[in-house]
Amino acid sequence: MVLLPNGHPLVAGSASASPLVRALRGDRPERTPVWFMRQAGRSLPEYREARKGTTMLEACLDPALVAEITAQPVRRHGVDAGILFSDIVVPLLLAGVDVTIKPGVGPVFASPVRTAADVAALPSLGSAADRGGFDRSLDVVRQAVSASLGLLGETPLIGFAGAPFTLAAYMVDGGPSRDHLEARRLMIADPETWDALMNWAADAAGLFLRAQVLAGASAVQLFDSWVGSVPRDRYVARCAPATARVFSHVGDLEVPRIHFGTHTGHLLEDMKEAGATAMGIDVTVPLDEAARRLPGVPLQGNIDPAVLGAPWEAIEAHVRDVVRRGLAAPSHVVNLGHGVPPDTDPEVLTRIVDLVHGL
Amino acid sequence: MVLLPNGHPLVAGSASASPLVRALRGDRPERTPVWFMRQAGRSLPEYREARKGTTMLEACLDPALVAEITAQPVRRHGVDAGILFSDIVVPLLLAGVDVTIKPGVGPVFASPVRTAADVAALPSLGSAADRGGFDRSLDVVRQAVSASLGLLGETPLIGFAGAPFTLAAYMVDGGPSRDHLEARRLMIADPETWDALMNWAADAAGLFLRAQVLAGASAVQLFDSWVGSVPRDRYVARCAPATARVFSHVGDLEVPRIHFGTHTGHLLEDMKEAGATAMGIDVTVPLDEAARRLPGVPLQGNIDPAVLGAPWEAIEAHVRDVVRRGLAAPSHVVNLGHGVPPDTDPEVLTRIVDLVHGL
Repeated sequence: MVLLPNGHPLVAGSASASPLVRALRGDRPERTPVWFMRQAGRSLPEYREARKGTTMLEACLDPALVAEITAQPVRRHGVDAGILFSDIVVPLLLAGVDVTIKPGVGPVFASPVRTAADVAALPSLGSAADRGGFDRSLDVVRQAVSASLGLLGETPLIGFAGAPFTLAAYMVDGGPSRDHLEARRLMIADPETWDALMNWAADAAGLFLRAQVLAGASAVQLFDSWVGSVPRDRYVARCAPATARVFSHVGDLEVPRIHFGTHTGHLLEDMKEAGATAMGIDVTVPLDEAARRLPGVPLQGNIDPAVLGAPWEAIEAHVRDVVRRGLAAPSHVVNLGHGVPPDTDPEVLTRIVDLVHGL
Repeated sequence: MVLLPNGHPLVAGSASASPLVRALRGDRPERTPVWFMRQAGRSLPEYREARKGTTMLEACLDPALVAEITAQPVRRHGVDAGILFSDIVVPLLLAGVDVTIKPGVGPVFASPVRTAADVAALPSLGSAADRGGFDRSLDVVRQAVSASLGLLGETPLIGFAGAPFTLAAYMVDGGPSRDHLEARRLMIADPETWDALMNWAADAAGLFLRAQVLAGASAVQLFDSWVGSVPRDRYVARCAPATARVFSHVGDLEVPRIHFGTHTGHLLEDMKEAGATAMGIDVTVPLDEAARRLPGVPLQGNIDPAVLGAPWEAIEAHVRDVVRRGLAAPSHVVNLGHGVPPDTDPEVLTRIVDLVHGL
């Protein structure tokens, strides 16, 4: 058992007995747990109110505000987990990388990282044991987790990070792109520089996740949003090792490790093998098919966000179908197959939670 | 045998004996044919020169310019096919829809199509037999095909159209979008309106293709670029029937029908079943795996565009691997797994053509 700095065991009794953690460990609790990717976001009027006057990254670095935003969907919908309100670039920012989030666009980096010299110039990360620059700067994350736990009570908190390919895709392209072509080029043309960048990103993400777990998160989810554009052989050679390196940062901590990306139907087995203990599934792979391909693996997913604007009858039929297909897995955490669209009617989400809990 | 309006048989001897058409019919000609999606485009300095002072859509509607641009990559690289220089929105524009192409963005529609009334207000298309408004307006396409054939000589021309989902995704969203969420929502929330829109788009694309074939194109390729965001069951119910309707417009004409989309690994069998005779494969599905899943089907693909900037040794090894995997199919047309990136060095493409022809 890992003890927290305060001497308490890592996973508190209430959280490890929660439907979320039990399902992520392969159990089938009395009620099927449900939460929504991007549940703490623009679909909620209280979120839009709370965010007034702050940029995204300012909000992510304000522990009291993070806690409030993290707790909002739990209060409103009765979901079975909070997920730390943050952004995948937060650890990069805390490490000293010059990055902003441009509203309506996404992360924008002052200097794209494309050469060995660019990678060598990235800030030193040290290790968690150092208590040096990067680890010290993660204190704001620890405070945000602690404050969130205070508001969440019995409801478990999921820690959050972006996977190395997705981080590197932004860093190499300098911002969002459709095909992540610059990153995929660097991977092929200069594998040594690529691997060095991926290892740096893995340590930034891994130390970010570790800080969240040691501060009390009951599970982690690693988002590799854009890795679906990578062919399988290149994923195995040039992405999976760095993803495994992220997971190794929390491997000694007894928390479930969820891994998710969109358009990753061709990579599911390899993403699991990189060190996940549960897999998030996007809308393109039916859960019963995912269960066949990933025997023994707890699954999370995969309500189609496009259904959320349909009449309730269509939503209910779809949710029931997702839950039915999820029975093919050892256990199932209901979620969307992608994030909550910002214009979603929050009442629909509450109604889905009630439906899933009543099934 | 179908006769052209001038009394000549539809597929001229030289074109039907071409390596491209033979390979698309399942034969293995002496040399493996190769062409590149978006070969007639910004990677060529002669293209950038020819396009000076014209918008994209102006260029698409200028038969002499279309022919010149279509022929440029054939002249330069010695590829085994020209593909008509056009855009998937050209038939919509010719039908009377208010659409422009915004440089660096993509197609932008003056009025998104989201309701039954919006669909009912779309211009009437009539049929090819009508010689009415839409068919008459396709004369510019026929002229462009004729002019292209004049420059291409023995090299066959591939006709081109966008598939209904991709057209509808633009029309419903009003322009490019990451997830095509509005289109996927309409599909679920109002299937009747969706189906009517898809049928309209299918007829526009089908009549556009038919005009190209009757004017002398030796094969057609239907691009469903964005359909990879659609789950399989919805594809089968709400997309495949309209795709089949496109193909039915050229079903009596003896030309191979290639079908392609990105991130469509979960849809390959269903896309083939919709009426394709050959399948284009994106970078996420290795050709030997595609051959196993699509027995007896000629394949086209799938050099990774990201490799084009790498040292030649890496490119050559990758091209050889693609050709080797393609041997698992009855026949293989070498291509990229997506379009040529605009900043590609054209000499690399020429060198790939030489390599493939020498294998």
